[in-house]
Amino acid sequence: MYPDSLKNLIESFQSFPGIGEKTAERMAFSIIGFDDEKVELLQENLENVKKSIHPCKICNTLTDEDICSICNSDLRDKSTILIVEDSKLVFLFEKMGTYKGLYHVIEGLISPLDDINPEDIGLDKLLDRVKKNQIKEVILALKPSVEGEITSLYIKKVLEGIDIVVTRLASGVPIGADMEYMDSLTLERALEDRKVIS
Amino acid sequence: MYPDSLKNLIESFQSFPGIGEKTAERMAFSIIGFDDEKVELLQENLENVKKSIHPCKICNTLTDEDICSICNSDLRDKSTILIVEDSKLVFLFEKMGTYKGLYHVIEGLISPLDDINPEDIGLDKLLDRVKKNQIKEVILALKPSVEGEITSLYIKKVLEGIDIVVTRLASGVPIGADMEYMDSLTLERALEDRKVIS
Repeated sequence: MYPDSLKNLIESFQSFPGIGEKTAERMAFSIIGFDDEKVELLQENLENVKKSIHPCKICNTLTDEDICSICNSDLRDKSTILIVEDSKLVFLFEKMGTYKGLYHVIEGLISPLDDINPEDIGLDKLLDRVKKNQIKEVILALKPSVEGEITSLYIKKVLEGIDIVVTRLASGVPIGADMEYMDSLTLERALEDRKVIS
Repeated sequence: MYPDSLKNLIESFQSFPGIGEKTAERMAFSIIGFDDEKVELLQENLENVKKSIHPCKICNTLTDEDICSICNSDLRDKSTILIVEDSKLVFLFEKMGTYKGLYHVIEGLISPLDDINPEDIGLDKLLDRVKKNQIKEVILALKPSVEGEITSLYIKKVLEGIDIVVTRLASGVPIGADMEYMDSLTLERALEDRKVIS
């Protein structure tokens, strides 16, 4: 139905996760209306991302420098490391804007069923970093799933014997959530971690 | 917050209509995970669309040939032309699959407020086409708005004196719509165009 070149572009857009047929079609039609310069800029930006984005040498956060801007900053609290499983989470925490410590992105979650074992997620790099720097606290911010919990417990164990505090994010009811849709594990944790109203 | 190259790509994606910040971010992160070949294919597809898509010489539908596959087909009813204001609509009607006539894409709708006058929307080409071919029916499928109505009436007038039938799409209540949300003009038209149940 569509001319070949248009069909191919729609298929390219549809291969992005979360982009359905209608959105891909609308995007491809937009391209026809864009200035040549705008399409060239998009092509350039695609190329630059593929060429220059890689993990930070210290913390694995995606960056286009050797060392990311967070590790490089003098304004961060260098005694705290927040551990996430994906660079996207670093940017999410940075958007929040209140966390002033450092990050460490591990390379996945331990998952025996998928044959992802403790030695596969780059914990040596983390351990080395904690040992060689004046770290006081490691905050675990992994996914609240079985894999996340296993990985958190494993990291806690690996860090035993080093003089640091290991914490995890509070579990509980999300702000704005409808109580009746909460699963019982979430409610159990929220009750366990309840706080005195002062 | 984001590395420059990633930020630029997110901005490129956000410049598409209907693509918000979250979707643009997710798309940009997907690019990082894509194979080099997949990104190259996307760049190629972008270039090919810009290079080869243009209006059909006969009907203005977007195509990568001189004459689009619909005008070129021996299987279409060459006595009927359906008039739309945008190539996208041609593809929408083709998806439906039951219309077997030809199309003509006019170059916009008459809109005195935006200084778009009858001579700006390429009606000469349509008139010439209707006169030189064995056309029996022209179906107007323009937007049900003030501009669409003005344009439909104007086209009807332009075609006066030529031995053809000029029709428009039925107006009425869309299938699956909630009656209480219909505006009164739609209800008025639906009542006017009511059909005997046989």
